[in-house]
Amino acid sequence: MLLAALELVGIAAFAASGAVAAVRARLDVFGVTVLALTTALGGGTIRDVLLGVHPPAALVNWPSLAVAGVTGLVVFRFHPTVARLRRAVLLLDAFGLGLFVTAGTTTALALGAPPYAACLVGMTTGIGGGALRDVLLREIPLVLRREIYAVAALAGAVVVVLGDRLDLPPAPVSLVGSALIVGLRLIALWRDWNAPVPREIDG
Amino acid sequence: MLLAALELVGIAAFAASGAVAAVRARLDVFGVTVLALTTALGGGTIRDVLLGVHPPAALVNWPSLAVAGVTGLVVFRFHPTVARLRRAVLLLDAFGLGLFVTAGTTTALALGAPPYAACLVGMTTGIGGGALRDVLLREIPLVLRREIYAVAALAGAVVVVLGDRLDLPPAPVSLVGSALIVGLRLIALWRDWNAPVPREIDG
Amino acid sequence: MLLAALELVGIAAFAASGAVAAVRARLDVFGVTVLALTTALGGGTIRDVLLGVHPPAALVNWPSLAVAGVTGLVVFRFHPTVARLRRAVLLLDAFGLGLFVTAGTTTALALGAPPYAACLVGMTTGIGGGALRDVLLREIPLVLRREIYAVAALAGAVVVVLGDRLDLPPAPVSLVGSALIVGLRLIALWRDWNAPVPREIDG
Repeated sequence: MLLAALELVGIAAFAASGAVAAVRARLDVFGVTVLALTTALGGGTIRDVLLGVHPPAALVNWPSLAVAGVTGLVVFRFHPTVARLRRAVLLLDAFGLGLFVTAGTTTALALGAPPYAACLVGMTTGIGGGALRDVLLREIPLVLRREIYAVAALAGAVVVVLGDRLDLPPAPVSLVGSALIVGLRLIALWRDWNAPVPREIDG
Repeated sequence: MLLAALELVGIAAFAASGAVAAVRARLDVFGVTVLALTTALGGGTIRDVLLGVHPPAALVNWPSLAVAGVTGLVVFRFHPTVARLRRAVLLLDAFGLGLFVTAGTTTALALGAPPYAACLVGMTTGIGGGALRDVLLREIPLVLRREIYAVAALAGAVVVVLGDRLDLPPAPVSLVGSALIVGLRLIALWRDWNAPVPREIDG
Repeated sequence: MLLAALELVGIAAFAASGAVAAVRARLDVFGVTVLALTTALGGGTIRDVLLGVHPPAALVNWPSLAVAGVTGLVVFRFHPTVARLRRAVLLLDAFGLGLFVTAGTTTALALGAPPYAACLVGMTTGIGGGALRDVLLREIPLVLRREIYAVAALAGAVVVVLGDRLDLPPAPVSLVGSALIVGLRLIALWRDWNAPVPREIDG
């Protein structure tokens, strides 16, 4: 119940990140809505395809659909000024990432995936929607460009798997995992942490 | 039988749209053929992956394969002059969209998907092949750039679902749904309808 | 056993090709690792999704994961100078292609796919990881740009299918098929074969 509510919050966050990115790319109202839906439902659809849930829950669950579509329209109508849009995409993306990684990892464990496969599926659930958004808008996905992105997703997934191994109650564990991901992403955004880049290239 | 024949027409239309787009991008004969196959079989493959049909019918059904490959080669050999190519991609894409959305929705209903999930799967079937084509050629997909694209697909899918609920015979309903999609796309192309764009952005 | 070892070699080759491409695109250590994993595990994951293996073997098999991740880190740390990088991507990609196409075709046949579907699944297994790599880095995939790419993949897949029909032992047949693919790609790279391009375009 709590998990279902959290998943809807994650869907709204990703839908908003997709819609804002689409507004930045100057798409019209239909393009914005389609990108909101794709970003919000993409990660869960990829998860269900990987785990063999047919048809994907994201496509059968009408509240997800309604939340994603309405969020897209609201963003289109009331989007803030462009100066704040880049930051808004990153903030919303962080929340979507946190909620989707933990939900994806939990679902994978419930369907019997081994721990490291559950981590990978959870990470893919969180990263997939945003990667689709960026590829469709011809940008290199955030997960490849931002230092503390895959690592934050991995950390949250590991928390969920550890909680499962220790038989802790899943809802608070998911909250802690999500908070860890969001926290790591926000710290990274604020301090603009730099990871090592390739050694200088001659030639 | 009629539906299978129509699906082959849709495959030929999408294969041609992919091949023409590849010719425009100056790919060689192999690249043109691969893009024709990907555009033509991509939507059906995505549909079958979403619905759990393994291996995807699009890959097992050799007439689809033959039609897509031969269409690609024919386009490569006899493509019209470049002035007509942009329009040709859009026209062929409209026919492929119409036939694939209704075929995808029908298949989803037959496999027991609920009505709105069937609409989404049908829309994805129709949009998927063209989206793959555009992403592979580094263009923002038509569905995000063209106003009456997702809406036309949705309208055709709804016709199929309504026909199913009213127990109408599926073949004529699919024809009506396809014709509606193609008609909406053609009107949009000819009149160049404009959907609302984001409010002016300050900053 | 031999096949599993060869698949690990293919994973290392594709991981290295992804990592080198990521270094060329100036990604940091995390982006390089993620792209190495995506390139190496993408083809096998697509294969398993098409064939209905849930969760995909590529995500459950920890040696694959370890090999891909370590390869990415090693490339990041010890990558050669940029002048050799373009060639290195092409060479490593050729080895990955050869090993993945034959492994994918073999798996598809073992799961009961008909011969031409097995060829298509095998080609997709080989082409998928590199196509993901190129799309994520905003390049038109090699398979569309290089003449002897899809044809080499097809030739290797056909060898595997013929060997299966003639009841030959699978391991040597896979080796021959892989060697054929790698050989065709290397000859194409060295002699820079040209396939026919579209007739001149007026307008």
